[in-house]
Amino acid sequence: MSQFWSEVVRNLDPYVPGEQPQVDGLIKLNTNESPYPPSPRVQAVLQDEQLVERLRLYPDPNSQRLKAAIAKHHGVDAAQVLVGNGSDEVLALAFMAFFQQPNPLLFPDISYSFYPVYCQLFGITAQRVALQDDLSLNLQDFVQPNGGVIFPNPNAPTGRTVPLADIEALLQANTDTVVLVDEAYVDFGAQSAVALVSRHPNLLVCQTLSKSRSLAGLRVGFAIGSPELIEGLDRVKNSFNSYPMDRIAEAAAVAAIEDETYFAECCQKIMATRAHTTTELEKLGFSVLPSSANFVFAKPPVGVEAATLAQTLREHKIIVRYFNKPRISEYLRITIGTDEEMDQLLAVLHKSLG
Amino acid sequence: MSQFWSEVVRNLDPYVPGEQPQVDGLIKLNTNESPYPPSPRVQAVLQDEQLVERLRLYPDPNSQRLKAAIAKHHGVDAAQVLVGNGSDEVLALAFMAFFQQPNPLLFPDISYSFYPVYCQLFGITAQRVALQDDLSLNLQDFVQPNGGVIFPNPNAPTGRTVPLADIEALLQANTDTVVLVDEAYVDFGAQSAVALVSRHPNLLVCQTLSKSRSLAGLRVGFAIGSPELIEGLDRVKNSFNSYPMDRIAEAAAVAAIEDETYFAECCQKIMATRAHTTTELEKLGFSVLPSSANFVFAKPPVGVEAATLAQTLREHKIIVRYFNKPRISEYLRITIGTDEEMDQLLAVLHKSLG
Repeated sequence: MSQFWSEVVRNLDPYVPGEQPQVDGLIKLNTNESPYPPSPRVQAVLQDEQLVERLRLYPDPNSQRLKAAIAKHHGVDAAQVLVGNGSDEVLALAFMAFFQQPNPLLFPDISYSFYPVYCQLFGITAQRVALQDDLSLNLQDFVQPNGGVIFPNPNAPTGRTVPLADIEALLQANTDTVVLVDEAYVDFGAQSAVALVSRHPNLLVCQTLSKSRSLAGLRVGFAIGSPELIEGLDRVKNSFNSYPMDRIAEAAAVAAIEDETYFAECCQKIMATRAHTTTELEKLGFSVLPSSANFVFAKPPVGVEAATLAQTLREHKIIVRYFNKPRISEYLRITIGTDEEMDQLLAVLHKSLG
Repeated sequence: MSQFWSEVVRNLDPYVPGEQPQVDGLIKLNTNESPYPPSPRVQAVLQDEQLVERLRLYPDPNSQRLKAAIAKHHGVDAAQVLVGNGSDEVLALAFMAFFQQPNPLLFPDISYSFYPVYCQLFGITAQRVALQDDLSLNLQDFVQPNGGVIFPNPNAPTGRTVPLADIEALLQANTDTVVLVDEAYVDFGAQSAVALVSRHPNLLVCQTLSKSRSLAGLRVGFAIGSPELIEGLDRVKNSFNSYPMDRIAEAAAVAAIEDETYFAECCQKIMATRAHTTTELEKLGFSVLPSSANFVFAKPPVGVEAATLAQTLREHKIIVRYFNKPRISEYLRITIGTDEEMDQLLAVLHKSLG
């Protein structure tokens, strides 16, 4: 604690990201990264000597090439797109732009743990809405007075998804505040709410290139919504950082977005590995929540503590995520890696449990 | 204006960066970019195929390699360094961390026009302190009750610098709030206040790789201060965006920082060109403020309007920056380009004025 810190800083409880250990030979299943490298087109972008030469110049503050590529992929207009330095930055801008309201912001009691941190930073009152007993999300519970609604779909860390019809029903009942659907994991089997954007001016959808585009290390996220929501985000962005997207990140992101074939292949492989992993975990006695993400949320067999099992895996150089939090302390969140990585995980589990 | 925007967003007056026209053959002297490419070591970094492969993984959230390189260059400890997505992001974090105080933040009436925008965004009361008649900064004028002090050194857009002794005198008189010295242009002939950091726990110094390292397109800035100030910034950073520095930006920035020889050569060339340009502008009847930056702030000869002259230059595909603002509307801010670019500028001026 320092006398020089603002009041808000003294009271902050910052977000703690999953660990990034620098250990060789580790099987890293703890932060939902893709096991596959980015599109080969990204490599080609970095070979362009002119790109380096042009680094002396500021980037396009509006990232128009990237917005156009995203707009084309999603069938929207470029004026409906905002890009940022990872979807975390895009979320932060949205909290400032829309959720600083007299009524509280609603989000699930179990969801992305960065939401309450943004609320602290920007002085927003948070109101948690409980998931059902089976950890599914009932969007009817969000029909109540609010200053905004945010939820991940698929939800994290459960991996469960809600159907588009439920999102549309919420939007029909909730027309006065912004509904933000955080779709970091949507490409692994869920339905995107981008399809609803043209009909609902208060709907904002946020996505990232970190997972399905294998670019967690590049920091690119985006939002899609009505032009009036994007303009609001742009006003905050231009009052915070004029150029959040560097020249290399923009060029590489465009290349990755345009490579539809590679993108589809990676998503398909991960979904196939997820199906196999789920079956095998169930054979070992795990309860596995239905997942539409690139991870599974799984409860070990009766009598086996999740925390203990995570530690056992770590001793075998396999790291998964354990949350010591109410309602989910019996689960492990396991990122879907390659088939080989998952086979090694299953072999260790087989040995430890059997 | 949208019903969905927060109150703060409705009242924002966002920052407007200098234009980035996409026109071939332009002589671009409007946004203080370096005319020289980045260090050849940056090119070498991008050739590393493993770098692309590793983009699937999140970067180090603490950017430890980059902090270590900056710490070594400046002779401080890595715990005294914070890095961010351009110095604009670093400044924004500092405004949240230190300047949200009951008393107003003090800054010069003529300085970086992003400061009042941050104040709007974060609800900080701003109090402008007038520069002297010759547009120099008298730091004694800042000895008054405040919630923080910020000024650029060299100042922008004047290019004038204050001596280290004046900064130290201010720090001796002002011990209860943070003094932020914004040194975006310091490498072109001013004295850095980093030398004072070990003696003053309330001093924060901010620098960027955009100018003297020719990396405006990469978005890397940093702050140096006492560990307690850096911890406060880190708390805000980790409540806003865990990974503001992508893998490529970090690796390229390390390479640029380590190339001391190339850095020194670029700064020397720009200072030599500045001296020549100043002499020639004075021969043409301009009044040129003494500059320690990579630009000059120059008043055209009596009878010539700065705005008109900027337009004339534009017709010759040379763009400079004109500010239609009180006290400085008679000046042009001219970035120092290559000798060849400045000779073309001087030739057009000679023809237009003579």
